[in-house]
Amino acid sequence: MNPNDSTPDLIFGIKPVLEGIRNGKEFDKIFLQKGAQGDAFQELFSEIRNHELTYQHVPIQKLNRITRKNHQGVVAFISPVSFLPIEEVLQQVYERGETPLFVALDRVTDVRNFGAIVRTAECMGAHGVLIPEKGAAQVNGDAVKTSAGALMRLPLCRVRFMKEAFQYLKDSGLQIVGISEKANNKLSEVDFSTPTVIVMGSEEDGISPEYLKMANTSALIPMPGDFDSLNVSVAAGMALYEVARQRGTADL
Amino acid sequence: MNPNDSTPDLIFGIKPVLEGIRNGKEFDKIFLQKGAQGDAFQELFSEIRNHELTYQHVPIQKLNRITRKNHQGVVAFISPVSFLPIEEVLQQVYERGETPLFVALDRVTDVRNFGAIVRTAECMGAHGVLIPEKGAAQVNGDAVKTSAGALMRLPLCRVRFMKEAFQYLKDSGLQIVGISEKANNKLSEVDFSTPTVIVMGSEEDGISPEYLKMANTSALIPMPGDFDSLNVSVAAGMALYEVARQRGTADL
Repeated sequence: MNPNDSTPDLIFGIKPVLEGIRNGKEFDKIFLQKGAQGDAFQELFSEIRNHELTYQHVPIQKLNRITRKNHQGVVAFISPVSFLPIEEVLQQVYERGETPLFVALDRVTDVRNFGAIVRTAECMGAHGVLIPEKGAAQVNGDAVKTSAGALMRLPLCRVRFMKEAFQYLKDSGLQIVGISEKANNKLSEVDFSTPTVIVMGSEEDGISPEYLKMANTSALIPMPGDFDSLNVSVAAGMALYEVARQRGTADL
Repeated sequence: MNPNDSTPDLIFGIKPVLEGIRNGKEFDKIFLQKGAQGDAFQELFSEIRNHELTYQHVPIQKLNRITRKNHQGVVAFISPVSFLPIEEVLQQVYERGETPLFVALDRVTDVRNFGAIVRTAECMGAHGVLIPEKGAAQVNGDAVKTSAGALMRLPLCRVRFMKEAFQYLKDSGLQIVGISEKANNKLSEVDFSTPTVIVMGSEEDGISPEYLKMANTSALIPMPGDFDSLNVSVAAGMALYEVARQRGTADL
């Protein structure tokens, strides 16, 4: 979130930020003053690291530009989006009698691609998007904008370890399908009538080998052209289209 | 193209720009000095309007910032992309014994969406992208970047009147398929084994009624979600995926 935005949601001051963290507030990022000292500051810093929050050391001038009030060396930007536990979201899907469809993003760090995927996921009837705590795109105002607001509506599950989440989902009856150029199956050869997690990898090197190994199957998108480098949000759209085509759930 | 780019391809001065236009150079846009006078300038202005080139009146200070040389009130930005006649491109596709696949863009004015569609079109084996002279996205450096260079490789056909181009393509044996929320057919119900032009419309109000009327058929993308607003470049990707799936041309 740009501090110049009209309504930047932020908290500043050591105690307010500390309380925010302890009360489970979701932060996009936290700015800490370079060279700040003191016991209270150290306590805050430990808490930030214990919760593995995203932080950055910045010059005091930067903090002063963000707020003229007494920030005590810390400004925290509140995430515009709230996160839900995957267990809760999955339970609700099963309770509604629907066939689960999730999208998991492995190191998709570009904010626009992330927002675009969430937008498509909502349109195509996915039930939620999974991202890891570390190595995901920032869930900020730009992401919300690119998602056309879908980030405020579609459940977003931020998990500490993707591996554990995948294991949980497999144990809960979902198939994990990695979209990968190295796959042997074509996308249309995979049966998507069953509960499914679509995994999209980074634009640089695809899905991490450890996640590919955990996947029940992997699928490639046939690319008849001479050039094979689809944008990850377009590739995610194709995969979600294929699921919708097979499930034939669209009401016309 | 941003004048601050490292290598802005530009021509300035009345005579050089005039010659460029008469020799068929492709321009992205032309800046003309506000209030400029004189016969030579008038001659240039007539020529710009006769060729329906994109121009803009700007203060002399803006021109002075772009070049310190004697610009005589005109700076023209050369398009980084060259255009090919649709007739020529189609002929070559038929000569190679391939089944034509084109994408036509009706008022897709966002440069990033345009670039993204060209990138996907190349990956999915389309033979070219059609845009109108007026009301298309600027074919500039940003578009080339978003296309991952595809704009420099995939034939781009800029036509004066889309209507005439559609008629020509129909007469040449291609089916025109409009992707539209208002269609009665699902995308997967359309037969894409025959020569095809996929038409994508503006993000605001879809395909122009006159083009939809000319189309042989229209197709909708089933959206099982509660929210139905796919990004146009994602929707184009789904349509091109469906063509590739049906044609099954991918070598695995």
